[in-house]
Amino acid sequence: MTFEGGEGAGKSTQIRLLAERLRANGFDVIVTREPGGSEGAEAVRHVILSGAAEDFGVRMEAILFAAARNDHVEELIKPALAGGSIVLCDRYMDSSRVYQGVTGNLSPEFMSNLERVAINGTVPDCTIIFDLPAEIGLARAKRRMNAVANDEIPDRFEKEELATHETRREAFLDIAEAEPLRCRIVDATADVNAIAAEVYGIVEPMLPIRSSGARASSLR
Amino acid sequence: MTFEGGEGAGKSTQIRLLAERLRANGFDVIVTREPGGSEGAEAVRHVILSGAAEDFGVRMEAILFAAARNDHVEELIKPALAGGSIVLCDRYMDSSRVYQGVTGNLSPEFMSNLERVAINGTVPDCTIIFDLPAEIGLARAKRRMNAVANDEIPDRFEKEELATHETRREAFLDIAEAEPLRCRIVDATADVNAIAAEVYGIVEPMLPIRSSGARASSLR
Repeated sequence: MTFEGGEGAGKSTQIRLLAERLRANGFDVIVTREPGGSEGAEAVRHVILSGAAEDFGVRMEAILFAAARNDHVEELIKPALAGGSIVLCDRYMDSSRVYQGVTGNLSPEFMSNLERVAINGTVPDCTIIFDLPAEIGLARAKRRMNAVANDEIPDRFEKEELATHETRREAFLDIAEAEPLRCRIVDATADVNAIAAEVYGIVEPMLPIRSSGARASSLR
Repeated sequence: MTFEGGEGAGKSTQIRLLAERLRANGFDVIVTREPGGSEGAEAVRHVILSGAAEDFGVRMEAILFAAARNDHVEELIKPALAGGSIVLCDRYMDSSRVYQGVTGNLSPEFMSNLERVAINGTVPDCTIIFDLPAEIGLARAKRRMNAVANDEIPDRFEKEELATHETRREAFLDIAEAEPLRCRIVDATADVNAIAAEVYGIVEPMLPIRSSGARASSLR
């Protein structure tokens, strides 16, 4: 399962709550995140976050993300699924589609070829998209960075930032619309416990039936 | 145009001779090589040649080669072709198919997706494959590395090395057979001037007709 959405949508809190509840119900759960999650991917993550790749443009950055994802898939995700664990991954292929594809202006063909390389067949069974108006996500992300809250009329830079957040939000919603069997949208403005209940309600019918003592089968 | 084949096949000498002859005939020629050839690609080349990528396996290495190739294509090759130059490139997509795909044991599907990402539509008009028996190529490559020539019966390691060279040779020949319109095989055991004449014989009919003063149109 993967968890997507803009900054400040509360993904990591919800992943933690879901993992706790699944474990309490006897499932093996692996929590991971992108970029990173495996040794090779973490190495590439450092290259990306250092800004070293930025000099070479968004295409190079997108390919490095794909290298990291492919390592993560082959080294951690596939073995975990094969071992019967439920894998909860914070950001995955949809983040690339949105951040490098849509707001990075890379062509859909290029991004789709790159996605094939990166995931190498491992499509999530379920993707939960945490949806949030751009203003709220941006304000939450800023509070997290200890930035001063700005209640005044946004200046030009902030308006552009808001527009980018809104474009990404729409792009995530477009993905959900295009792939309704895989994707579910959750209103991320709701109360944290209400969201957790909604997420569990989505996940529960997809859980493997466990006969006592038997290993749970995998849920991607 | 791209030039392919195993080590010791004389590619770089032949590329130099061809470039000289084309320039003497008034063509704009750009000589380049892979991995490398553009700023971003050279940066990745250093990562690959440093051995840092090896720790993460042949898939990661293959994706880094793709990142380098894509940068090379977008930053150098496409603009050069658009400007009317003939581009001569020492190794390109076929080297990846052979070195990472065939002898690196990566699946054809993975390699073909990766190739699409890397070249992003820029397929060479002509690829010359320099063909050489594995023993001769290996011996030439060793002389180049100042290794002592070994005329004795090859030991186990050397036999494996020979087998790998032979596998790569066959893989290049398979590509030529599968894509006869793009690929031409040249016998690299012949005399250097004879090879140069054969190469020019292949290239000449493909050259753009230049009306005096007009820019030559591109030859990939």
